[in-house]
Amino acid sequence: MKPAIRVAVTGAAGNIGYALLWRLASGDCFGADQPIILQMLEITPALERLNGVKMELVDSAFPLLHDIVCTDDANVAFKDCSAIFLVGSRPRTKDMDRSDLVAANGPIFTGQGNAIEKSAKKDVKVVVVGNPCNTNALIAMNNAKGLDPRCFSAMTRLDQNRAHGQISEKLGVPVAKVSDVVIWGNHGDTMFPDASWAKVDGAAVTSKVDADWLTGAFEPTVATRGKAVIVARGASSAASAASSAVDHMRDWWQGSHGRMVSMAIPSQGWYGVPKGLIFSFPCICEGGDYRVVTDLEIDDRTREQIARNVAALSEERDAVANLL
Amino acid sequence: MKPAIRVAVTGAAGNIGYALLWRLASGDCFGADQPIILQMLEITPALERLNGVKMELVDSAFPLLHDIVCTDDANVAFKDCSAIFLVGSRPRTKDMDRSDLVAANGPIFTGQGNAIEKSAKKDVKVVVVGNPCNTNALIAMNNAKGLDPRCFSAMTRLDQNRAHGQISEKLGVPVAKVSDVVIWGNHGDTMFPDASWAKVDGAAVTSKVDADWLTGAFEPTVATRGKAVIVARGASSAASAASSAVDHMRDWWQGSHGRMVSMAIPSQGWYGVPKGLIFSFPCICEGGDYRVVTDLEIDDRTREQIARNVAALSEERDAVANLL
Repeated sequence: MKPAIRVAVTGAAGNIGYALLWRLASGDCFGADQPIILQMLEITPALERLNGVKMELVDSAFPLLHDIVCTDDANVAFKDCSAIFLVGSRPRTKDMDRSDLVAANGPIFTGQGNAIEKSAKKDVKVVVVGNPCNTNALIAMNNAKGLDPRCFSAMTRLDQNRAHGQISEKLGVPVAKVSDVVIWGNHGDTMFPDASWAKVDGAAVTSKVDADWLTGAFEPTVATRGKAVIVARGASSAASAASSAVDHMRDWWQGSHGRMVSMAIPSQGWYGVPKGLIFSFPCICEGGDYRVVTDLEIDDRTREQIARNVAALSEERDAVANLL
Repeated sequence: MKPAIRVAVTGAAGNIGYALLWRLASGDCFGADQPIILQMLEITPALERLNGVKMELVDSAFPLLHDIVCTDDANVAFKDCSAIFLVGSRPRTKDMDRSDLVAANGPIFTGQGNAIEKSAKKDVKVVVVGNPCNTNALIAMNNAKGLDPRCFSAMTRLDQNRAHGQISEKLGVPVAKVSDVVIWGNHGDTMFPDASWAKVDGAAVTSKVDADWLTGAFEPTVATRGKAVIVARGASSAASAASSAVDHMRDWWQGSHGRMVSMAIPSQGWYGVPKGLIFSFPCICEGGDYRVVTDLEIDDRTREQIARNVAALSEERDAVANLL
């Protein structure tokens, strides 16, 4: 059997963490032949609850789970890690303006960036799930300048999965037959789900649905899906967010088999997006790495949507400029 | 690809259900090449919340999840099912005596037994997770007399997993190297975790730990683990219960590869347990069926523990005699 790899999860006692840990321990992410050691980080007041989560992981007797670490010290959590899920964050709430948001998340992600640089493996794969995830990833990446920026990513896979789910329901086909929706930009208000390239059973989705459905139903449904889940379930998306984080990391780790998957990663200037912004692009994963699909011939509307996302993310970047 | 099978989960909007559904949809239970249709049952007031759970399942874009049904009608939920997880129940709370408990669970499991007989496949595999699970399974089985009693089981795998976890922690070895603890009897106060047959890396566990640890630490820790998780986590075991339900059904469905797994199933008189009681025995699963390991040479203490469980389960059976 392969040697165990170390995998860190922050905010591990929260609802997304709770949904994520069992998927990791079962082998869904790194493969059925890859043992893991889970290194879980929480804030100090949540350590007792985290210990309860550890007890339940022990009680699940996972053959692939070789050890479990609980800590409130990021350097312990990230020590020798090959993969890191940054789930814990302080999301924006109604009473917070931008400066509050930055004040709350800045110290978390500067500190975690430093600890990743100091303690994790040099080829670590980091996905930020905690919102605002693009800018949190930007902060972490810029506080780990000794690492390749390509170690850092943020999650827009939930948006892509939601988009594929909507097309599956609309056309009454299993979601496995739907592929290649592209999520552009920020996992936030300006996020653009682009079905121009999407396929169902090999045919263009745009040949199966009318354009009004795409702009009038599909796009707003995907954009507001998080709020709709809260209304129905009485709680925010947890298992679907965790599942998308598994998908993001699994494809990065094991390959996407030629499918386009959306990942927010540091731009190299693709599609006119300023270098260094953490921006969601279509990617193909292979050999433990991603490459951006750079040759899509995008139309004016998509160009405008990309520009809106560049504006929003540039503004966020400027607000945290002192942390970069 | 294989045709999809129908899998029902009751209490699907509850905490165990929420942890279970994603494990089923990801392929952890029925295999990576077996598509499923999830048929989720809830009480009428929980249907909106259940719809929120469905939204998140759609949003997870599982390739193996071919359809999702939400209903408050057991006949719809169990229609053509090959596997059923009976998770929803009314557990015993402090203010309830035995007659209250029976009054609360009787109608649930008589009705679900009837619906399973009427609507599910004739070779359906049913596992009852909702407590008191042995007697709930007894009620369901006796209200589905047109089916083979071997279709019905209750879950003691969580106890077995907890036992394996404790031995793994005690000896500092991965839990994959621990096997063959036997859970006897009732998933309740009298449950007996028997390490007499347990192995670690091929050697007898009893040769690695002293007898005092087994009786003074191991047995009480396994027996009271549920309460300890509640104290630490502030919530009852959910993900570990769901994970154990996956293990139970996966081994029944796909085989246990020669390992002994504990399942509560209708006794045929093995080890002196009266015929028809739903009692946990050591089983080996193969070819989609289980067989009880009937030739363990048990000692006097184990015989006493079995007798305690027979007494407890007989008393429960007598209390629900009018429902059988």
